[in-house]
Amino acid sequence: PQKNKPDFSNRGMTLEEDISATNQFYLEAGIAVVHKKPTPVQIVQVDYPKRSAAVIKEAYFKQASTTDFNGVYQGKYIDFEAKETKNKTSFPLSNIHQHQIDHMKAIIEHGGIAFLIVKFTPHDEVYVLPAHCVFEYWDGQFKGGRKSIPYQVVHEEGILVPFHFQARVDYAKALDKLYF
Amino acid sequence: PQKNKPDFSNRGMTLEEDISATNQFYLEAGIAVVHKKPTPVQIVQVDYPKRSAAVIKEAYFKQASTTDFNGVYQGKYIDFEAKETKNKTSFPLSNIHQHQIDHMKAIIEHGGIAFLIVKFTPHDEVYVLPAHCVFEYWDGQFKGGRKSIPYQVVHEEGILVPFHFQARVDYAKALDKLYF
Ligand SMILES: [Mg+2]
Ligand SMILES: [Mg+2]
Repeated sequence: PQKNKPDFSNRGMTLEEDISATNQFYLEAGIAVVHKKPTPVQIVQVDYPKRSAAVIKEAYFKQASTTDFNGVYQGKYIDFEAKETKNKTSFPLSNIHQHQIDHMKAIIEHGGIAFLIVKFTPHDEVYVLPAHCVFEYWDGQFKGGRKSIPYQVVHEEGILVPFHFQARVDYAKALDKLYF
Repeated sequence: PQKNKPDFSNRGMTLEEDISATNQFYLEAGIAVVHKKPTPVQIVQVDYPKRSAAVIKEAYFKQASTTDFNGVYQGKYIDFEAKETKNKTSFPLSNIHQHQIDHMKAIIEHGGIAFLIVKFTPHDEVYVLPAHCVFEYWDGQFKGGRKSIPYQVVHEEGILVPFHFQARVDYAKALDKLYF
């Protein structure tokens, strides 16, 4: 809907970097405490040179067992995964892993808030999409359903996230609409 | 108080490993969803050998900006740091960092639950110690106060955590007493 807006949002920062910058702003402004979880790494060999910092010489990337971000907002546990797609018409479920679905389902069972932040790069739009909507399509694909979430569904069931200079992915306002 | 109990709890597992095993049990039993955050690592060089996994060839340990563990329990955001001490009579505040204190204070301001899990190895005892008690001593040390929390204070203001075979550090029961 904002075809001719100036391209502030696309200065070479990834969605995750934009969210981390937003989290830093939220922390300083007293809005929320949310952090990105570090990339899990299996460390095999470490050198301890004299008079300088330990150097990891051999390590491997591990599969994350959870999602990208979690924290506390207005007294609630929040947990989300950030995903970008170049697809114009739908969000392919191949972007998500079963263990992320399992994690988000467990969060909701325990009274937390789980969602995706989805960026459609062709539209330069970012949405907060509640986990229940993701589950519907995720579970449906194993019963003969489609393997992606239509853009139109994300547009209607998600909340469009505004871009602000300080809160580049200002998702807290979307959470207010969805959950508070 | 349990001087002659059999030494089940000390089979070479660290406090963090015992807590992670407990979290796995809590997850499977539907009690809570809590995970250890991965150790943050600054990756400098990665090799991508043909037909095998990427190898991290140079990386450095980074200072964590938060605490060890967080998650959701009974709808509440919980966040804690695990610390062991060999000290018999007090918990030295040098085990804690200012950024961990800042993080725990922010959590509480936003309605989350923050605490330490402290193990006194000489007593083979583990306690849940609410963050406000830690803050009292932390802030006090800059006003001429002592630089440690007396064992007796931890024993009185904290909750002793029972050892169970499956829930090796069964901290959820302590949270029930303190916060629910
Ligand atoms: Mg992601
Ligand atoms: Mg620790």
